[in-house]
Amino acid sequence: MSLQKLYYHLENTYHLHSISSLLSWDQETYMPEKAYEERSKQMGILAGIIHQKKTTELREVLNDIDLSVLKGNDFLIVKRIQQDFEKWSKIPEKFAVQLSELTSQAQFYWDKAKKNNDFDLFSPYLEKLINLKIQEANYLGYEDCPYDALLDDYEKGLKSKDFENIIQSFVKEFYQKKSKNPLKNNPFFINIPALEQIEFANRFIKDLGFDFTRGRQDLSSHPFSNAISIHDVRITTRVKENDLQYMLYSTIHETGHALYELGLNTELIGTPYSETCSLTIHESQSRFWENNIGRSLAFCKFLAQKLKEYLPKYFHELNPDEIFLVLNYVQPSFIRTEADEVTYHLHIAIRFELEKALINQEIKVNDLPHLWNEKVHDYLGITIPSDSLGVLQDVHWSAGLFGYFPTYSLGSFYAAQMYLHLKSLFPNFDSEIENGNFEFIHQWLKKNIYSKGRLYNSNEILEQATGKPYNTNAFKQYIDSKIVF
Amino acid sequence: MSLQKLYYHLENTYHLHSISSLLSWDQETYMPEKAYEERSKQMGILAGIIHQKKTTELREVLNDIDLSVLKGNDFLIVKRIQQDFEKWSKIPEKFAVQLSELTSQAQFYWDKAKKNNDFDLFSPYLEKLINLKIQEANYLGYEDCPYDALLDDYEKGLKSKDFENIIQSFVKEFYQKKSKNPLKNNPFFINIPALEQIEFANRFIKDLGFDFTRGRQDLSSHPFSNAISIHDVRITTRVKENDLQYMLYSTIHETGHALYELGLNTELIGTPYSETCSLTIHESQSRFWENNIGRSLAFCKFLAQKLKEYLPKYFHELNPDEIFLVLNYVQPSFIRTEADEVTYHLHIAIRFELEKALINQEIKVNDLPHLWNEKVHDYLGITIPSDSLGVLQDVHWSAGLFGYFPTYSLGSFYAAQMYLHLKSLFPNFDSEIENGNFEFIHQWLKKNIYSKGRLYNSNEILEQATGKPYNTNAFKQYIDSKIVF
Repeated sequence: MSLQKLYYHLENTYHLHSISSLLSWDQETYMPEKAYEERSKQMGILAGIIHQKKTTELREVLNDIDLSVLKGNDFLIVKRIQQDFEKWSKIPEKFAVQLSELTSQAQFYWDKAKKNNDFDLFSPYLEKLINLKIQEANYLGYEDCPYDALLDDYEKGLKSKDFENIIQSFVKEFYQKKSKNPLKNNPFFINIPALEQIEFANRFIKDLGFDFTRGRQDLSSHPFSNAISIHDVRITTRVKENDLQYMLYSTIHETGHALYELGLNTELIGTPYSETCSLTIHESQSRFWENNIGRSLAFCKFLAQKLKEYLPKYFHELNPDEIFLVLNYVQPSFIRTEADEVTYHLHIAIRFELEKALINQEIKVNDLPHLWNEKVHDYLGITIPSDSLGVLQDVHWSAGLFGYFPTYSLGSFYAAQMYLHLKSLFPNFDSEIENGNFEFIHQWLKKNIYSKGRLYNSNEILEQATGKPYNTNAFKQYIDSKIVF
Repeated sequence: MSLQKLYYHLENTYHLHSISSLLSWDQETYMPEKAYEERSKQMGILAGIIHQKKTTELREVLNDIDLSVLKGNDFLIVKRIQQDFEKWSKIPEKFAVQLSELTSQAQFYWDKAKKNNDFDLFSPYLEKLINLKIQEANYLGYEDCPYDALLDDYEKGLKSKDFENIIQSFVKEFYQKKSKNPLKNNPFFINIPALEQIEFANRFIKDLGFDFTRGRQDLSSHPFSNAISIHDVRITTRVKENDLQYMLYSTIHETGHALYELGLNTELIGTPYSETCSLTIHESQSRFWENNIGRSLAFCKFLAQKLKEYLPKYFHELNPDEIFLVLNYVQPSFIRTEADEVTYHLHIAIRFELEKALINQEIKVNDLPHLWNEKVHDYLGITIPSDSLGVLQDVHWSAGLFGYFPTYSLGSFYAAQMYLHLKSLFPNFDSEIENGNFEFIHQWLKKNIYSKGRLYNSNEILEQATGKPYNTNAFKQYIDSKIVF
């Protein structure tokens, strides 16, 4: 009875989260520009109500439950919720409202700043946000440094020292590596009107398994996936009319996120039984589809077929080997989301080092553009031509997501481990993909990842799924197997 | 201090209403089809929270205020809110949640039923809704009949007997009237792809004064206007690719609603100072732009110019007199939203009589299609070919809006009175419209209608604006001046 009461309470809280997600989605897609001030107030009020649900009201229903008599999933669920409650109740309601209002505003100004290549439009909001995030870290508590308190939101228990070791070992291994010979021909460099690109993408991701009765795709400044509710998972993309890859691989990435959300358990909604495990596992899913699957030779064969079938006006003869070379061409570039699988992690290293320094108060917001450009020059050997292509490129900081970036690298490393395991399990792996049969992968992911919910931590899920503990060697082995430097 | 507290409370409640409006807008425009169950739960939870704000919490802040010491707008605002509170507090929270959940569901099934021409898909939900609305009438109380309790939501104090007299006098006057000679040519019957129609409409309503930095237009099953917040007013439309009028006059109607919302006072948000007065005044604004302005000869001249300018592929030589004849051609038809200005009110009479009988428990839901077709045959002399073109055509009942329809007629009669007054005030009225100068109308409406908020009732506003009490003769005079039977 008291357990039912808890689950009912969690479901109600979940519905409020859904509403908040819709407000965010709308803000990034269709909201008229002058509505942003009211929107930030709507977000703030909702954040206050949700905070009440997750603290004061949750305490009441949790108090009635005796963990020691619970078994199985009930035990795992309640244990997680108790941990969540411990964390949530450290944050004052007023602070939650303030943070929500500010991130809603900051995203508006970030978007404006990026479009106008004017960092100063964004910097006052970023500064306020960093101050709030430092305050949040103080509320939550930490051992080594404030940044660790925030990292924990995205990958429970991860310390910045640990991630520093991981990413530095990567940097050492791959620093200044690039593909040797220049590319001859890029079949994606072709003029296709935005609407036709989106129409193609919608058909294509349907083939990958995206269910349009339970989701949709729209345009936004920065692509994202937003799981509004269990049957309402929305992704966004962006378009360059002269480069199909720009849209397509962003769409595939977001589809990976969406497939995870759409594959979650649909019972006990709002509890860890039907939630995603962590941002690391989330990014492992997006990166798995975008890269391990999406940039494999077998997938290039499938893609070549579909390009000819769905866009016959633009594609006639396509050579999958040529597509493969383009998709796996390693070279430094400005934009993280467009980077190849190797230099991508240098982008992450840059963001990780800068955001850590910001939160730990070692650098100032005003120095950020300058420091960004320096680091890019150092790690990637290229010169940033404008802040829009540099420090302003990513939405995360404006949304208050400090500590998120490391999960892209961790997720990629996890994904490589899953991929190698899957290939060893299924001898016909490549030929199935070539024929557009992804069902066996969906089933494996459903059983081994999606259905695990948030009942285990990231490493436990990875180890249960692949039979091996997490190790970065899988990623190195995976890269060596496909890319010739 | 206690007044500030009240205003702050009302603003917060307003922001919650905004959120609820966004959920509705999304449900009718972009929501994936399988998300409807979660959406109805989200709506329900929000309705519960809003109900709390408007009853228990409002009581607390109202209790601290002494109306007798207030003056001017403060006095008028608090008086209104006290009346609102009296009414709101008669409704139990559980009922508000239930009603909100059900209307969200019912709209989904109505849409499905209409698309599939299958009344049975909708009827179980309609039956439940009617039962709830009868219950609501009982909560609210009434003198003559339950339907009166609901009417009051749309036009304060209106009794069904009064409206019956008004609409019956109209029916007597205009029954079986139609334009004499058949139309020769309809320039709107031309194939234009949906996207080009919408693009044209967006440019056109911008010319009328719609501010796209504070609003947008999308597609939906049934056109509507939704004021999400003071700077976020969204309208929708629908398209037939072989009939431009179908989209255009629905768009102009919704633009009239939107101009009202966008012209409201922007201070004291969430109070009657910055709210619309009533549905009657709201519909007077939509019908004013759609009909009095939109079907005038002067406007036809303006429209002819813009069709040639914005759609040169489709329109070369256009005769404004011909457009005028098409737009003012009186003949019976199936669909209310497409009806001419005269037979329109026969459509309203049909809906009024049926919904009154439903709420007063004189007829049953299952008899509705049959009774609808009978009444249409009786009043309009035509035979309904399918429920989609009959009883299923309007969204209102599925949204729980019983008592709404009379405001379309009242609004039209109000609009005619405003229009005749404006024409007498401005000698250059027609030539200004012909040249697309609507600014003087916006200013007059802003001063005389929009800025009055909800501080006065509909009749007071009309009389203050036109110097005359409400009378239906204005409408009859207006029709006689333009239409030859």
